[in-house]
Amino acid sequence: MRFTTFLHNGSPRLGLIEGDQVIDLNAAVPHVPADLRQALEQGIDLNEAARAAADSQAPRLPLNDLQLAPLVPEPGKTICLGLNYFDHASESGRGKPEYPWFFYRGKTSLMAHEVAGRVPKVSERFDFEAELAVVIGARVPRHVSQADALDYVFGYTCFNDMSVRDYQKRTPQWTIGKNFDATGALGPVVVTADELPAGASGLRIQCRLNGEIMQDATTRDMIWSVAETISLLSECLTLEPGDVIAMGTPAGVGQARTPQLWMKAGDVVEVEIENVGLLRNPILAEGA
Amino acid sequence: MRFTTFLHNGSPRLGLIEGDQVIDLNAAVPHVPADLRQALEQGIDLNEAARAAADSQAPRLPLNDLQLAPLVPEPGKTICLGLNYFDHASESGRGKPEYPWFFYRGKTSLMAHEVAGRVPKVSERFDFEAELAVVIGARVPRHVSQADALDYVFGYTCFNDMSVRDYQKRTPQWTIGKNFDATGALGPVVVTADELPAGASGLRIQCRLNGEIMQDATTRDMIWSVAETISLLSECLTLEPGDVIAMGTPAGVGQARTPQLWMKAGDVVEVEIENVGLLRNPILAEGA
Repeated sequence: MRFTTFLHNGSPRLGLIEGDQVIDLNAAVPHVPADLRQALEQGIDLNEAARAAADSQAPRLPLNDLQLAPLVPEPGKTICLGLNYFDHASESGRGKPEYPWFFYRGKTSLMAHEVAGRVPKVSERFDFEAELAVVIGARVPRHVSQADALDYVFGYTCFNDMSVRDYQKRTPQWTIGKNFDATGALGPVVVTADELPAGASGLRIQCRLNGEIMQDATTRDMIWSVAETISLLSECLTLEPGDVIAMGTPAGVGQARTPQLWMKAGDVVEVEIENVGLLRNPILAEGA
Repeated sequence: MRFTTFLHNGSPRLGLIEGDQVIDLNAAVPHVPADLRQALEQGIDLNEAARAAADSQAPRLPLNDLQLAPLVPEPGKTICLGLNYFDHASESGRGKPEYPWFFYRGKTSLMAHEVAGRVPKVSERFDFEAELAVVIGARVPRHVSQADALDYVFGYTCFNDMSVRDYQKRTPQWTIGKNFDATGALGPVVVTADELPAGASGLRIQCRLNGEIMQDATTRDMIWSVAETISLLSECLTLEPGDVIAMGTPAGVGQARTPQLWMKAGDVVEVEIENVGLLRNPILAEGA
C-alpha cells in the first residue's frame, strides 16, 4: 500500500494512492486520524483501512492536482545518519566510520514534495543529499535485535537532506547546517514495508539536479542497514510511531565535485528511489 | 508569574504558582489549553489568565504533593548549546569557540522534575550539566536583531542536560549521547521574563550531586547571551512558541574531574538557578 498526506481546504488528510489517483482515506474511513503519526500511535490498521477505502465510494482525486503536506506533519524525532555510504564517506575525506554519525532535524526544517527548498540569505553553499527514509510504525522495544528490528517499520519514503555546508562545518556539530527552514524534503508517498525488499535494500537511488544525474547508487551499499540502525538506536532511546530515520546519502554531492556545485534559485532537484517514489522540489531564494 | 505543568488524573494541566501552592489554571480559566506550547501558539495572554486565576475560587493544590509533567510536553524543537561557558570549554580541552556548538534533543529524551534520570545499560559514563533554559513565547521573525530578540522569550527554567559521555564522543556528532531516554530534565517552573534580569543574566547557577556542589557559576559568564543566541539562530531557522533553548553548562562536570565522577543509581542530582527554581531528579538504572 502507498499512502500520502495532502492538503484539503488547508488541512492535512491521509490519502491512499491508487495508480495516479488518491482516495481520501479520512472521507472513506472516518475513524482514521488525518495525521499519519496519530494513526500509527493509535495502532490503526492502515492496511485494513486502505482496503475499506478502496471498496468505498469515497472521491478519487488526481494525485498530480493535489498539494501535498509533510508526509508526517510533525515527527516526534527525525534522526539522520551521516556518512552511511562508503563512497560518500570517502569523497568527504573520511574513512569508514565505526559508528553512525547521528544528528537530528527539527520540525521547521521539514517540507513536502513540490514545496520550495530555500537558499539561505546567509549562505550560497546549499547542497542536495538523496536519502532513503524510514517511517517507524510501532513503538520499538529498547535493545531490539537486528532480527526483530524490521517488525517496527511502517514503510519507506524519499528524503532530500539539503545541507548548508558552511554552517554544517562551522563547528564539529553538523546540526545547524541541517536545520535551516525548508531544507528537509520528505515524501511524496510512504510505501509499506511489505511491498519492498527487507530493509528496502538493493533499491536504486538517484538525485537529479535540473534533470542531470548527480547521485546514482543502490541502497545495498549502506554501511548500516535499516535493521542495524534501528537496533543500534534502541540501545539508546525509544523509537516511536511516526519517527523518521533518514539513512544517509551516497557519493556525488555538490560539495565534493570539482568545481563545487551549489543549488541556486530556479533549480529543480529530484530524489528518486526505485519502487518508492520521486520527490521533487523547486529551489527558491529565502524570502522570494 | 510562575507556571508549571502538573498531572491531574494522568493528564497534563497548566498551573499558576502562588507561594507553595498551585492554582489549576485550566479549572480557573477554561479556554486556556492544558499544553503550554498550545497556549503560547494560540497567543493566549497567560499573564491575564494568571490574574483571573488568582482572583478565582479555583482549587489551590500544594506544589510539593503534585506530580509534575514535562513543562513543555513536546517542544517543536529543543536546541542545546555546547561549550557556552569559557571555563567549561577550557576544562573540555577546547578554546573559546567562534560559533555555538548547536545540537538537538528529541522528545523521548526529556523528562520532568522528580522523574528518574536513567543510567543506561550500555554505559556507566553518565554525567550532569546544569543549564539555564529559555522557553520561546512567540514566533521569532527570521534575522531578528539582538536588540529585539528578547521580546520573543516567554520565560526561563532549569535544565539538566545529562550526557552519556562515551556515546557523545563515539563520533564528532554529540547528538546520540544527548538523546538517551530520560536524560534531559526540564522544569519545574517557568518564570516569565519580566521577573528576571534581561536575558536571565547574572543569576547564580549550581549543580549539586547528593547535596555536594559540583558546578557553581553565574549566567553572566555565558559566551553567547540569550539575545545573541536567538539572533544567531534566526539567521537559520524559525523559532516557534514552545521551543526550548538550553544555554550550555559551566565548569565542574563529572567527566572533567580527577578522578572522573559518574552518576549512579541512588544518586540525587539538583540544578538550582537563582530566582528561577530548583530542579531535582533521582537517578536509577535503566529498567529498574
